Amino acid sequence: MTTQTSRRTFIRRVRDLIGGFTLAGVLPSLARADTTKMQGLPARPYGTRSEYETSARWLTPSRYATSTASWTPLADLDGTITPSALHFERHHGGVPTIDPATHRLLVHGLVQRPLVFSLADLRRFPATHKLCFVECSGNSYREWRGPGGENVQQTHGLTSCSEWTGVRLRDVLNECGIDARASWVIAEGADGAAMTRSVPLGKCLDDVLLAYTQNGEALRPEQGYPLRLLVPGYEGSISVKWLRRLKLTDEPVYSREETAKYTDLMPDGRAREFTFVMEAKSVITAPSPGRTLEVGHNEIRGLAWSGRGRVTRVEVTTDDGRSWQDAVLHGPVLPICHTRFTLPWVWSGDETVIASRCTDETGYVQPTRAALRAVRGDHSFYHYNGIQRWHVTPDGALSNV
Amino acid sequence: MTTQTSRRTFIRRVRDLIGGFTLAGVLPSLARADTTKMQGLPARPYGTRSEYETSARWLTPSRYATSTASWTPLADLDGTITPSALHFERHHGGVPTIDPATHRLLVHGLVQRPLVFSLADLRRFPATHKLCFVECSGNSYREWRGPGGENVQQTHGLTSCSEWTGVRLRDVLNECGIDARASWVIAEGADGAAMTRSVPLGKCLDDVLLAYTQNGEALRPEQGYPLRLLVPGYEGSISVKWLRRLKLTDEPVYSREETAKYTDLMPDGRAREFTFVMEAKSVITAPSPGRTLEVGHNEIRGLAWSGRGRVTRVEVTTDDGRSWQDAVLHGPVLPICHTRFTLPWVWSGDETVIASRCTDETGYVQPTRAALRAVRGDHSFYHYNGIQRWHVTPDGALSNV
Repeated sequence: MTTQTSRRTFIRRVRDLIGGFTLAGVLPSLARADTTKMQGLPARPYGTRSEYETSARWLTPSRYATSTASWTPLADLDGTITPSALHFERHHGGVPTIDPATHRLLVHGLVQRPLVFSLADLRRFPATHKLCFVECSGNSYREWRGPGGENVQQTHGLTSCSEWTGVRLRDVLNECGIDARASWVIAEGADGAAMTRSVPLGKCLDDVLLAYTQNGEALRPEQGYPLRLLVPGYEGSISVKWLRRLKLTDEPVYSREETAKYTDLMPDGRAREFTFVMEAKSVITAPSPGRTLEVGHNEIRGLAWSGRGRVTRVEVTTDDGRSWQDAVLHGPVLPICHTRFTLPWVWSGDETVIASRCTDETGYVQPTRAALRAVRGDHSFYHYNGIQRWHVTPDGALSNV
Repeated sequence: MTTQTSRRTFIRRVRDLIGGFTLAGVLPSLARADTTKMQGLPARPYGTRSEYETSARWLTPSRYATSTASWTPLADLDGTITPSALHFERHHGGVPTIDPATHRLLVHGLVQRPLVFSLADLRRFPATHKLCFVECSGNSYREWRGPGGENVQQTHGLTSCSEWTGVRLRDVLNECGIDARASWVIAEGADGAAMTRSVPLGKCLDDVLLAYTQNGEALRPEQGYPLRLLVPGYEGSISVKWLRRLKLTDEPVYSREETAKYTDLMPDGRAREFTFVMEAKSVITAPSPGRTLEVGHNEIRGLAWSGRGRVTRVEVTTDDGRSWQDAVLHGPVLPICHTRFTLPWVWSGDETVIASRCTDETGYVQPTRAALRAVRGDHSFYHYNGIQRWHVTPDGALSNV
């Protein structure tokens, strides 16, 4: 009883002392005593994370606050679903604020019936959901000419994986009636950049969604609220966010974002255009730079993914490529999804290099940086999917090599 | 140019007028003009939902703020993943605030080596993730004696589905060495109720996790931050949150929450104890009460789940049970997970009753209320999984019948 009373007096005194602070700010230090001896906080209608959690997206330094990228902290995350609050994001004119009640999607061009759809209209179409990753084709861009990013967030953080729900684009296009001459769909966003990309009609009739939901609830503003295109397996910029217009045409529009940007300058001076598919890729997220490795039993953990389907194999080396072991793939292994792999590892404390390489269901094997550069030359920026090596020093520190 | 100028002048005037309001609060109304003609907001390190989104958990009215339940708004959600911010939640002594750096898990009792684990210790064990639902055995409790909840949030909102990551409990128990006499594991939470439940050892050695991650990031405070038990397919209260102690014993502890509560009073006056498994269940989430149904083409959407494994079939009736049609199950259909089903429906505008019933991989078929009551009597509170009927009136309104 005495202990109880004095603890209560203490709490009251602390409350009096801190005055302007919130109760939530005080509780943690008190809670260390014994949280079973006090009532906790009441439930909230819409939750937030613990105040002890500080993991954050890293923003590419940029002269323009409204043209930047924010990178997912892959080393801090587990499993395969990326929390919506930490999903990577790239915008070219800031994040627009759009009222879903007044937002409209225009479908026109080579169609029999140009139509305008509200969100409510789209929600009356059959809904379908799809777990899939979205990866910016600029992910790992600093790795082309050697080690670039300081950690896995900076080397690979422009990929994230969510469950998306929406309408099959083919259902909406069929409602408009597709003209036989149509072969491309030009998608335009309602952002300050009016982001515009050309999508082959065949892909649109296959697995493209008009997505309004991410991980169960409405898209986040940075992900295109209230409507985005979702083009599974293709470079992220083509999954146009804040979607307001689709125009069917018989040729690509050759917008800025598929000519000056998002093309690949090859050694012969020509540029590859419309290199849509994100090839197989993997990275070890733990251990990785920023955390200290401990001698003894560890578990190597990482992510692997392919825009062409399922990951079928991930190999890991802990001796800089002299030998490779098959990692365990944790199911369900789904097509065009992040796949988690793990491998037990007893670290001796010696200097070494660890790395992973994956194979997808087409048989494609993730290449080395040297192999990539042999084909793509010295001027590439996009579509880097080389093997990522982490150097381990005897003090347990890791770095990008 | 004139239009541009006058719009800018207008924006400036509105800003001057509203003064104290935030820019974010003003932007939406302005944005309706044309969001492609202005820069949007900058990226944020940790995102939040759009200010237009207001979906919220519904809190059971309670005399005690620290003993209540909050119900997931199933009608507002798509897909199968429940956003962590809207995951249902039930607590018996409030939500404790726990510093993960100082939190410890004690494993003792019938073990060879009693051990204390920090979160960092647990993270060195092999990690595994599992998509699974958690359902409170009190979900749908008001439906036992007739229609109770006003909408699907109030009838079925105590179930949610997430991707959980953690350590297999068997790995931790094996580290401690299991005494041959042990047959139960007593789990204790660090909340104000010191929530305590007995779990059969066999289940603990099968698929139980010590979970520290939900949907990619740390557990939310309401979900047991920083550590919870996750007992797939069993009633939610046994997945003890804020886990601080596991004691191996040769009998259950017979705590309050498995004697006075979480037992089922049968017609003969005896109570069923340790009725762990959540049986197969389904519900139509759209159309459902609170939304107006429109005449013509609609899509019936719902969720089905079973604590015994995969859902294999969902049938839907739109004529109060005179006929049933198979709904489409949207993959991946995973064991012990919410499964989304849909069925197209052309509503004539006539009065009717719609309902769903599911079958799981054991062959078990979701029963009617009458069939449940014939076996379980009139005094049940927990484990209601009867077929949910929604009454449709000609004005397009729905209600629980």
